[in-house]
Amino acid sequence: MKTHLLAATLLAAAMADISPAHAGERAGAPGIRTDVAPKQEIRLERITPEYWRVTLDNPPFNIFGPETIPQLNSIITQIETDPKVKVVVFQSAVRGFFLTHYDFVPPLSATTSIPPGATGLPALPDMLVRLSRAPVVSIVSIRGRATGVGSELSLASDMRFASREKAVLSQWEIGAALVPGGGPMARLPRLVGRGRALEILLAGEDISGDLAERYGYVNRALPDAELDRFVDALARRIARFDKRSIADIKRLVDIPSLPPNSEIAAEWDAFLASAHRPQAQQNLKRLLEMGLQTKPDVEKRLPYYTGTLGQ
Amino acid sequence: MKTHLLAATLLAAAMADISPAHAGERAGAPGIRTDVAPKQEIRLERITPEYWRVTLDNPPFNIFGPETIPQLNSIITQIETDPKVKVVVFQSAVRGFFLTHYDFVPPLSATTSIPPGATGLPALPDMLVRLSRAPVVSIVSIRGRATGVGSELSLASDMRFASREKAVLSQWEIGAALVPGGGPMARLPRLVGRGRALEILLAGEDISGDLAERYGYVNRALPDAELDRFVDALARRIARFDKRSIADIKRLVDIPSLPPNSEIAAEWDAFLASAHRPQAQQNLKRLLEMGLQTKPDVEKRLPYYTGTLGQ
Amino acid sequence: MKTHLLAATLLAAAMADISPAHAGERAGAPGIRTDVAPKQEIRLERITPEYWRVTLDNPPFNIFGPETIPQLNSIITQIETDPKVKVVVFQSAVRGFFLTHYDFVPPLSATTSIPPGATGLPALPDMLVRLSRAPVVSIVSIRGRATGVGSELSLASDMRFASREKAVLSQWEIGAALVPGGGPMARLPRLVGRGRALEILLAGEDISGDLAERYGYVNRALPDAELDRFVDALARRIARFDKRSIADIKRLVDIPSLPPNSEIAAEWDAFLASAHRPQAQQNLKRLLEMGLQTKPDVEKRLPYYTGTLGQ
Repeated sequence: MKTHLLAATLLAAAMADISPAHAGERAGAPGIRTDVAPKQEIRLERITPEYWRVTLDNPPFNIFGPETIPQLNSIITQIETDPKVKVVVFQSAVRGFFLTHYDFVPPLSATTSIPPGATGLPALPDMLVRLSRAPVVSIVSIRGRATGVGSELSLASDMRFASREKAVLSQWEIGAALVPGGGPMARLPRLVGRGRALEILLAGEDISGDLAERYGYVNRALPDAELDRFVDALARRIARFDKRSIADIKRLVDIPSLPPNSEIAAEWDAFLASAHRPQAQQNLKRLLEMGLQTKPDVEKRLPYYTGTLGQ
Repeated sequence: MKTHLLAATLLAAAMADISPAHAGERAGAPGIRTDVAPKQEIRLERITPEYWRVTLDNPPFNIFGPETIPQLNSIITQIETDPKVKVVVFQSAVRGFFLTHYDFVPPLSATTSIPPGATGLPALPDMLVRLSRAPVVSIVSIRGRATGVGSELSLASDMRFASREKAVLSQWEIGAALVPGGGPMARLPRLVGRGRALEILLAGEDISGDLAERYGYVNRALPDAELDRFVDALARRIARFDKRSIADIKRLVDIPSLPPNSEIAAEWDAFLASAHRPQAQQNLKRLLEMGLQTKPDVEKRLPYYTGTLGQ
Repeated sequence: MKTHLLAATLLAAAMADISPAHAGERAGAPGIRTDVAPKQEIRLERITPEYWRVTLDNPPFNIFGPETIPQLNSIITQIETDPKVKVVVFQSAVRGFFLTHYDFVPPLSATTSIPPGATGLPALPDMLVRLSRAPVVSIVSIRGRATGVGSELSLASDMRFASREKAVLSQWEIGAALVPGGGPMARLPRLVGRGRALEILLAGEDISGDLAERYGYVNRALPDAELDRFVDALARRIARFDKRSIADIKRLVDIPSLPPNSEIAAEWDAFLASAHRPQAQQNLKRLLEMGLQTKPDVEKRLPYYTGTLGQ
């Protein structure tokens, strides 16, 4: 496993434009090793002992960073081990963003220094693999952008439902000269076929809820006004079913549908290798200068901005 | 292989509500080992030597029971061995029901006592596997409910066409705390992807013809008025083609698309194990009390009734 | 590998009806071993060093024959080895035909005598496999018929976009008692699922752009007036991205989505075996008599004509 650091000095220069307010927030949550408790970005709510809800709440963009990993890990561990829970719904409390890309402000070492997880995989792919294999039904309810990690969390979940008007899915990484690291090269072809997977991964474009349904990227896109009610009814229905038979059905579906861990590991290696190459470092620096992670327009129209980099 | 019996006494109590008319029918067709010839529930018609039609005709609900197994087995054996047949269409003569769930009135031993088939698998999955591998094109024309075994026969067939208005597909078993036993955990993910397969199997909801097409559960949903003509024209077209090349194409498509028998075997074991657990026995007893297998409303709105069990 | 020849005398008889004009064209391009340079049927254009366009231009029907193989092979070798190219678009210059079936006028030995390619596979499947594995994004823009080899080239490419009004895809071969030889039994089930793959391969019917999208046979069908602009914009976008990360993403997607070469080899063997059987030779002779490769109506309504053969 490669462990060189992203050139933090390059990124530090890029951060000069970041507003003091954000810089302040960051200063208060610099990573996972601070003695100050990090902001709780993810909330777990037990609606009933059988039906849990996980709310992603890290405004303004629901960016996922190294400090988020132990928070999500704790929740996934509870999902794996709780004797009663049968179904978990993931949703966002941040308007416009389900869960977006990885945090490129902390040095990459803040991520690579997190110990591997129970599967032996690095922490982020480890959690996603464990969510897929947990004997509990995971459902994502996508409203707003599910970009990068947001798409990867969705792909690792068992079912995906999207707002027809307000969901946007994407694997945008190629636009920054990055290879995605959280499993989409393994999971997308099995879900949507090779051709659509390559389009999603190599165009790095936004995929609307409607197109996501046509491609099979989500189970269904629903009118935004119906999404919450639909997902809640589905979760409550499953929560009344037999936990043991749910687990047996999942286990049998896993056999033909889950990628082997070796494919997941290869993606993380390719992601790290790409992140250390000069092209990605330069592209990330320029995106941060443009306003990635600070300006709403850059986050909301990310494919437009990545499309300007190579010109 | 587990061979304990469903608690027949529990079920006998549940049968007290069954109308005398139905009880009489059952008394006349108690299983496969009676000396009285069982009612012929499936008809084979040779439209031409190359084009056969199989009609499922077991009113009022086209329930599939242990007595149906040798009847279907005989037809599948003929399909496998006939030197001329090229294409077989499966359809229903029962209004509202293509083919529905397994018969829960006979004791489970009536099924488990049937010897394994030519593949070494238990009789029901053996037949379905052999249909998939036969050098003959199998097409289901789905009008009415294809629930449980009806869905599993459809998934084991080569092509599925559904009435847009009148077809309903489902794997309802989880609603009774059962694991399906006829192959859908192996076949659905390969056909519709992991996310939609898990939804179908774990929600246990009715899937309309239209949604079944969007999910890839069927090849196409057609307007009900066009379904028969479409399927007949397709079958007659294929019946004019070369039998040897048909078989070679199927054999080559089998390689990447058929599950190994080991996955099919694991499902049957999981089904039997679930059928012996108290939760399934209790749920089946309650469903039979509500009117499963006797009252049309229960058969037609099965997901509603299964959704009431855990409350 | 079987190497018997198609009964050239049968075919020669069938050619009696061919118009002198066409016979003249053929005489000028009799195969790959002539001392006269064969007509250039495929053009490679470097729009930029990163973005190439391949134009299929063999009027009147864009038939693909043994003389086309070295031309396409040369282009694919350049795609594989050029240090700059990132994306290649395949399109047609022939109205009504993207790329259609193999040329049945030359003896089969003109094809089987071409040496195997770099993968060890016969020349035609070798090229298609190498295109799939090349570290370059291949996109087909389908307007007109993509039949037989045209469908197989499309399936071997990374992404497929089709004119909603003017694209027609098909694997028509079963209609001539042939087994397709260029990979569709391996590639279609992985892309569209077993049921739809078997329908495409065993019905041998035309698939419209719209149905091709619903089946997943193409990524998307676009209004004809938008197709060129869409594909060009997508190609220019990808051409600005990082070549190394593009190659890494493709390599990782290849793992779960590409068939092993053994499946591709088995198809070619089955194709050759079928081509040597009397039924295929008789069907091809009759199709050539009807006007295959000479009369536009036969090429444009091929499924109608194949459907008349067995009557």
